[in-house]
Amino acid sequence: MRTDDGHDLRHHGDAEVRGTGADLTDLAVNVRADTPPVWLREHIAGSLGGLAAYPDGRAAREAVARRHGLPVERVLLTAGAAEAFVLLARALKVRHAVVVHPQFTEPEAALRDAGHAVDRVLLREEDGFRLDPAAVPEDADLVVIGNPTNPTSVLHPVALITRLARPGRVLVVDEAFMDAVPGEREALAGRSDVPGLVVLRSLTKTWGLAGLRIGYVLAEPDTVAELERAQPLWPVSTPALAAAEACVSPRALAEAAHAAHRIAADRAHLVAGLAEFAAEGVSVAGPAEGPFVLVRAPGAAALRARLRERGFAVRRGDTFPGLGTDWLRLAVRDRATTGRFLQALDQALTSA
Amino acid sequence: MRTDDGHDLRHHGDAEVRGTGADLTDLAVNVRADTPPVWLREHIAGSLGGLAAYPDGRAAREAVARRHGLPVERVLLTAGAAEAFVLLARALKVRHAVVVHPQFTEPEAALRDAGHAVDRVLLREEDGFRLDPAAVPEDADLVVIGNPTNPTSVLHPVALITRLARPGRVLVVDEAFMDAVPGEREALAGRSDVPGLVVLRSLTKTWGLAGLRIGYVLAEPDTVAELERAQPLWPVSTPALAAAEACVSPRALAEAAHAAHRIAADRAHLVAGLAEFAAEGVSVAGPAEGPFVLVRAPGAAALRARLRERGFAVRRGDTFPGLGTDWLRLAVRDRATTGRFLQALDQALTSA
Repeated sequence: MRTDDGHDLRHHGDAEVRGTGADLTDLAVNVRADTPPVWLREHIAGSLGGLAAYPDGRAAREAVARRHGLPVERVLLTAGAAEAFVLLARALKVRHAVVVHPQFTEPEAALRDAGHAVDRVLLREEDGFRLDPAAVPEDADLVVIGNPTNPTSVLHPVALITRLARPGRVLVVDEAFMDAVPGEREALAGRSDVPGLVVLRSLTKTWGLAGLRIGYVLAEPDTVAELERAQPLWPVSTPALAAAEACVSPRALAEAAHAAHRIAADRAHLVAGLAEFAAEGVSVAGPAEGPFVLVRAPGAAALRARLRERGFAVRRGDTFPGLGTDWLRLAVRDRATTGRFLQALDQALTSA
Repeated sequence: MRTDDGHDLRHHGDAEVRGTGADLTDLAVNVRADTPPVWLREHIAGSLGGLAAYPDGRAAREAVARRHGLPVERVLLTAGAAEAFVLLARALKVRHAVVVHPQFTEPEAALRDAGHAVDRVLLREEDGFRLDPAAVPEDADLVVIGNPTNPTSVLHPVALITRLARPGRVLVVDEAFMDAVPGEREALAGRSDVPGLVVLRSLTKTWGLAGLRIGYVLAEPDTVAELERAQPLWPVSTPALAAAEACVSPRALAEAAHAAHRIAADRAHLVAGLAEFAAEGVSVAGPAEGPFVLVRAPGAAALRARLRERGFAVRRGDTFPGLGTDWLRLAVRDRATTGRFLQALDQALTSA
């Protein structure tokens, strides 16, 4: 999907590492490295014995509700966050949809595919891509925002986001990367006092389950019921249900919390390394709080090509509304990988 | 979903065997016994190593296209046939939808959920539930029919079904059970000369993959593109894609063909056994050509309860539009299971 202003909303990081033949180190896709862990893979494999039966999502739904301290009526399991975007776009009565950009493009693509016009609120680099609630039109009855935001990595304060809530407005907060933020501070998942709030969660990124299609929606019971009516029967597969249940267990939450702290440390290392290239015009949007960073680098398209030659796939930034050709998104990886990447970046910048 | 005439369109066979605590022999769900086979389960397990990557459906799509001798533009992989029904209901411009009943209720439920009024054409017992093309209103622009039909097990001749095709009409033929018919005679899958034809296929029943959510649509390229736009990103999981590719391999097709012949023999055994109860008012709709049979038995609701007491779950028939309270659907099982079932039926009828 290419919009009037030329943004390919259907470009995703997986396209950057796919089908090239080359064995690229992937800094383009925001999935945690070395996932899924062995214990989780074995748990999923254990569910394959029950494939002949239709999926029964009740236990997983209850487990997710328990994890967020919510009644099950506020939980809907979906085939990834991507399905949630389609359900929101197709099931809800929407007159004026607003998407806060730059952000993950799929919500806008799903809204457009469902026939809605979409207004964009563009957060600006000079404001550090921070949210200005006053910039959102008062009559918007659907507002979509990511927190922390992909690709800017900005974490908006809860107090600022909740200022967007209104009676008669659906406020969608995509928290796909919130479990990578230590303590999940600024999370709205679990809140039931914000009118019209819809929180989206993914298990894909932290747990390496992009291939399994599992996520969930937390919302008011009426909204959950409305979205559920638009779902196909048996929307989530048995292996995905098994994974969901496992990923909200106390053991998994402890592992995710540990990973979030490690990601923060690894990100600090990456950001410090990138700061060395300030003289070459390289800068990082921030403060970055997600498992990826948004980087401004003059001539990013050529730089990206040179990084590929040196074995690194990075995510182009120019397909995100509000970003120009000078932007790249980098996934946070371990220190060794980041060290090799920074060397490659040095060579790529020098050979320009 | 309960319609004006009291049919619960969202009742499915899995509800008959679920959560009872009792260890029931399942004749309610139309999934082949002893599936998935070990080789298929191992193939699916092998795909779990790649879960961290987003699903890439290209190889599976090509394999399905090859299996039916069609270009890939005519193939859409879906998260089970259930997703296909929702896509058809939501993505296509439909003014007058007609569903030929009795049949699987999900197409009508999906159409109603999408806001469409649905006209029913009811095939009649006295006609052997055979299709009368003249009964379908001329101005219908979407017609849905199953072949072989669930729950009647009637196999409609291709020549009769194609008489329903018209320019400007989408003709949906649900062939979810066609691979259980020896030689797949009367299949429309693979045909590209029937205007507006949409064939749905499932891998769930023959391969025991109900828990995995995989099926596909064969249609004109424009229709495929329209349905695809209404799909979420990455609609089919990596394990489901691995399964789809495996299930259209020559080896799998040979196994399915063998199973179809075995089902035909097992069905003949079941039908012959049921004929013994003609004096008690038991009769079988037919000729039955699917992996299940539709049975008329006076007082079916009470009979079903007595069969449960004797350890057998059977599918109630009264939730299917066009069928009354005297109907039951039975899955075809192996001779030993059928033998035990017929004994239980004998006792259940005698104790009435």
